Amino acid sequence: MAHPIQLLSAKRTTGPAIKFMPLKLFILLFVAFQALAQTTHRLSQLRVQGNKFVTADGKTLVFRGLNASDPDKLDKSGHWDKSYFEEMKRWGATLVRFPVHPPAWRRRGQQQYLELLDKGVAWAGELGMYVVIDWHSIGNLKNEMYQSPIYETTQKETFEFWRTMSDHYKDNPTVAFFELFNEPTVMGGKLGTCSWAEWKKLMEETITIIRANGSKTIPLVAGFNWAYDLKDVAQNPIQAEGIAYVSHPYPMKRDKPWEAKWTADWGFVAQKYPLVLTEIGFSAADEKGAHVPVISDESYGDAITRYCDTHGISYIVWVFDPQWAPMMFTDWNYTPTRQGQFFKNVMQQAAKH
Amino acid sequence: MAHPIQLLSAKRTTGPAIKFMPLKLFILLFVAFQALAQTTHRLSQLRVQGNKFVTADGKTLVFRGLNASDPDKLDKSGHWDKSYFEEMKRWGATLVRFPVHPPAWRRRGQQQYLELLDKGVAWAGELGMYVVIDWHSIGNLKNEMYQSPIYETTQKETFEFWRTMSDHYKDNPTVAFFELFNEPTVMGGKLGTCSWAEWKKLMEETITIIRANGSKTIPLVAGFNWAYDLKDVAQNPIQAEGIAYVSHPYPMKRDKPWEAKWTADWGFVAQKYPLVLTEIGFSAADEKGAHVPVISDESYGDAITRYCDTHGISYIVWVFDPQWAPMMFTDWNYTPTRQGQFFKNVMQQAAKH
Amino acid sequence: MAHPIQLLSAKRTTGPAIKFMPLKLFILLFVAFQALAQTTHRLSQLRVQGNKFVTADGKTLVFRGLNASDPDKLDKSGHWDKSYFEEMKRWGATLVRFPVHPPAWRRRGQQQYLELLDKGVAWAGELGMYVVIDWHSIGNLKNEMYQSPIYETTQKETFEFWRTMSDHYKDNPTVAFFELFNEPTVMGGKLGTCSWAEWKKLMEETITIIRANGSKTIPLVAGFNWAYDLKDVAQNPIQAEGIAYVSHPYPMKRDKPWEAKWTADWGFVAQKYPLVLTEIGFSAADEKGAHVPVISDESYGDAITRYCDTHGISYIVWVFDPQWAPMMFTDWNYTPTRQGQFFKNVMQQAAKH
Ligand SMILES: [Mg+2]
Ligand SMILES: [Mg+2]
Ligand SMILES: [Mg+2]
Ligand SMILES: [Mg+2]
Ligand SMILES: [Mg+2]
Repeated sequence: MAHPIQLLSAKRTTGPAIKFMPLKLFILLFVAFQALAQTTHRLSQLRVQGNKFVTADGKTLVFRGLNASDPDKLDKSGHWDKSYFEEMKRWGATLVRFPVHPPAWRRRGQQQYLELLDKGVAWAGELGMYVVIDWHSIGNLKNEMYQSPIYETTQKETFEFWRTMSDHYKDNPTVAFFELFNEPTVMGGKLGTCSWAEWKKLMEETITIIRANGSKTIPLVAGFNWAYDLKDVAQNPIQAEGIAYVSHPYPMKRDKPWEAKWTADWGFVAQKYPLVLTEIGFSAADEKGAHVPVISDESYGDAITRYCDTHGISYIVWVFDPQWAPMMFTDWNYTPTRQGQFFKNVMQQAAKH
Repeated sequence: MAHPIQLLSAKRTTGPAIKFMPLKLFILLFVAFQALAQTTHRLSQLRVQGNKFVTADGKTLVFRGLNASDPDKLDKSGHWDKSYFEEMKRWGATLVRFPVHPPAWRRRGQQQYLELLDKGVAWAGELGMYVVIDWHSIGNLKNEMYQSPIYETTQKETFEFWRTMSDHYKDNPTVAFFELFNEPTVMGGKLGTCSWAEWKKLMEETITIIRANGSKTIPLVAGFNWAYDLKDVAQNPIQAEGIAYVSHPYPMKRDKPWEAKWTADWGFVAQKYPLVLTEIGFSAADEKGAHVPVISDESYGDAITRYCDTHGISYIVWVFDPQWAPMMFTDWNYTPTRQGQFFKNVMQQAAKH
Repeated sequence: MAHPIQLLSAKRTTGPAIKFMPLKLFILLFVAFQALAQTTHRLSQLRVQGNKFVTADGKTLVFRGLNASDPDKLDKSGHWDKSYFEEMKRWGATLVRFPVHPPAWRRRGQQQYLELLDKGVAWAGELGMYVVIDWHSIGNLKNEMYQSPIYETTQKETFEFWRTMSDHYKDNPTVAFFELFNEPTVMGGKLGTCSWAEWKKLMEETITIIRANGSKTIPLVAGFNWAYDLKDVAQNPIQAEGIAYVSHPYPMKRDKPWEAKWTADWGFVAQKYPLVLTEIGFSAADEKGAHVPVISDESYGDAITRYCDTHGISYIVWVFDPQWAPMMFTDWNYTPTRQGQFFKNVMQQAAKH
């Protein structure tokens, strides 16, 4: 049974836990809480209602958001600060995604990485923007095989990451979304096999963990083909209430005209569940960092934003960084790239309504 | 095939192994064995018969035992010595449980930890007490997620631990019991899910390993809810002969009156299989280390010992240590705590019969 | 999505990849390729046709081969050189097997080990000998439990090894065979259980990975009992085209007369699939390194080579090394042991035809 160190937590509660709190400590905590309440903007707790995200008072929200690069990367280059969030706000973002790469999580140390996230979550909340925490791996979690070393993790580490996140942010409504696994893919068999049933089971296990740890954050679940394909949801949806689905419909995943294919591949999901395109974006072939499958132009930007407007789908553009691609600006004066200019205009317009 | 180092073990035997033993070595071993036989009390090999533990000559044994703290912890504080065992004997113990924490096993090193265990097994045997070796983890072995870092292990490490134990103690009847996994729990989903079928499969795999490695030691299998609940045994018992079941019915797992609930939750098992309560104990709310679910008083001690007497159930009190809780003594003069005094009386009475 | 380092590989191709290759680079590569083509003997790409191995022009090949010891071991002792391969060629070998021990793979480092393999593959190819790359573990891959530490690996490491091999050698026909896992065994339950269905699934997953990574190398699949037993293939063959099966029929696996038992245990497979005995061999009881199950004499050599000749089965003798057993020579002048002399004669005769 218990060792001295555990007595504080008393996790083995089966009846009501017996706790004593000295009055002095209570007063101290009360004052600290009041101070916190004055300086932070407390966003309304988001939840799923049908195929919509709604606030506590029943208002529907559709997001236009921006992908930060990895907080660890931004911190190392001196850009993990409030001005970065203020700039995202100026571009019209109502949602910010934090892609946490597993090796960054391991190398910085859990406690140190949590401090980074805490700062970002606070800045976003103060500016009225919600946050997606994204476990940024790419590959086959079933076999624990990945596209490249930067995406290496294990099932155990993935479960523990969400155990930590759900416990840590259980009372923080700014953290509206947990994106359970960035881009599931078997790379055409290079990483072995994973059936939808196997994937679904891993996602349902993760959702169980998140909710048992007390979190009300909305889980976001992606499908195969680097988070593009959601066709299996039609017949065999994730068995959990209150979740939303994800697609990453980069331009080269399908040839033009895109719309009917998008509907068949993932858009149909939006009729029944909330849908978030947590990565969209494009770059011209001659721009820095151009690569398959993102090469396209403003016609893609027009198509995907119109599609989202029409169907009430939220999106988050990849990526608010001058080095990762497709990038949105070219230098730390935030000079927009082509897609940067395109989405800045669109999102600023949307923010006015 | 084989490398030089393997030739000694010749494990790939499919026909009769061809072995040569020089006469001198034979004599040396014979003398050593004789010496050993003179100094150690060789306990009778225990086995399961119906719902009883019986000795080689058919005598039924019901145990009243004590939990040591981790041998690694006792050794570090200078208390892993024969006098500790002599004191347990004086308190009436006929069985001693060694809780081996996985990180202690890893950190000390397998060989060094085995030396500790060998000493404890020898002292217990000399004093006529049987031993339980307990793999002292708490959590969900299926997902390899645990209550806290001190319980971290893997399926592989667990299987290898029992492979090592079963080979090492295969000819030592003092080691009567192997408790395969201390306290299985999903912590209400915080550690994900584990069905009884999944748990049963892990336990059956462990039992296969133990027996194939030549051990006659009796496996002890626990159920969920921190080893409290055995209801699934009714419909779906472990598929293995000669095993016994475990419960840890601490007082706060259920409200008074306990007896009918105990029978429904785990006591019914004793009608068909041997049952060992490998952890029982209580402390008053104002005693050092008091925590959920152990807070109670002598009324619990009366109830649980009477229940065990009535139904032929063995038990082991947690814990013969002045720091871990609920503790049995307060200092290394072995001054009893309230539960210490209670169980010392009861066990000394029982030892007289 | 992508980070700068990934842009070069552009692995996320879903449409035709857009690639630019400067003319200078193209000319450089062309010249380099021509140079390579002139200095290396390019063997014909082998494939499976019915129960035969055939070359590109339809010629059937049956192999008489030799097991190298681990390239890492040979390199450390200064014998991983072309003269070692020339000697194998002189003994009549048409196929050479490289047993890669997982800890050697890990300790030397993947890149450094690949360089060793590249050299060996080149020497073999220049001498007209094909190569088997053998993942030389012994045990239960399902439970990740092994016969001894030198065979320790994981499912993940095994899959990654084949991912690396299949990508690295995808255009090299000298590497004719990938032996997926040397000797599957549960050691009579000491390593737990593994059903044929579970083993088959692991092998099929590995084959999927190999082929998706572009390799045409023929996978070799073994059965239980240290790669002796293939009886399950009759009712439940591996679901993959173009593979071959393996047995290691050492003399003591069965009592004389062997032939009918061999046919029932593994030989029947040769009627439908190509079969390679990737380890055969014997030593007298008084020879260095003699151990179960290899002790026998020339009568075994006669029987197994005649059996292979009669049924068109390929074989590879264990082991072209003066320390590992059963050894083929006693010193680095390549002085033959008893089995060395026996197989040298037989293979040299076969090589004349
Ligand atoms: Mg315990
Ligand atoms: Mg694992
Ligand atoms: Mg071998
Ligand atoms: Mg991404
Ligand atoms: Mg593992």
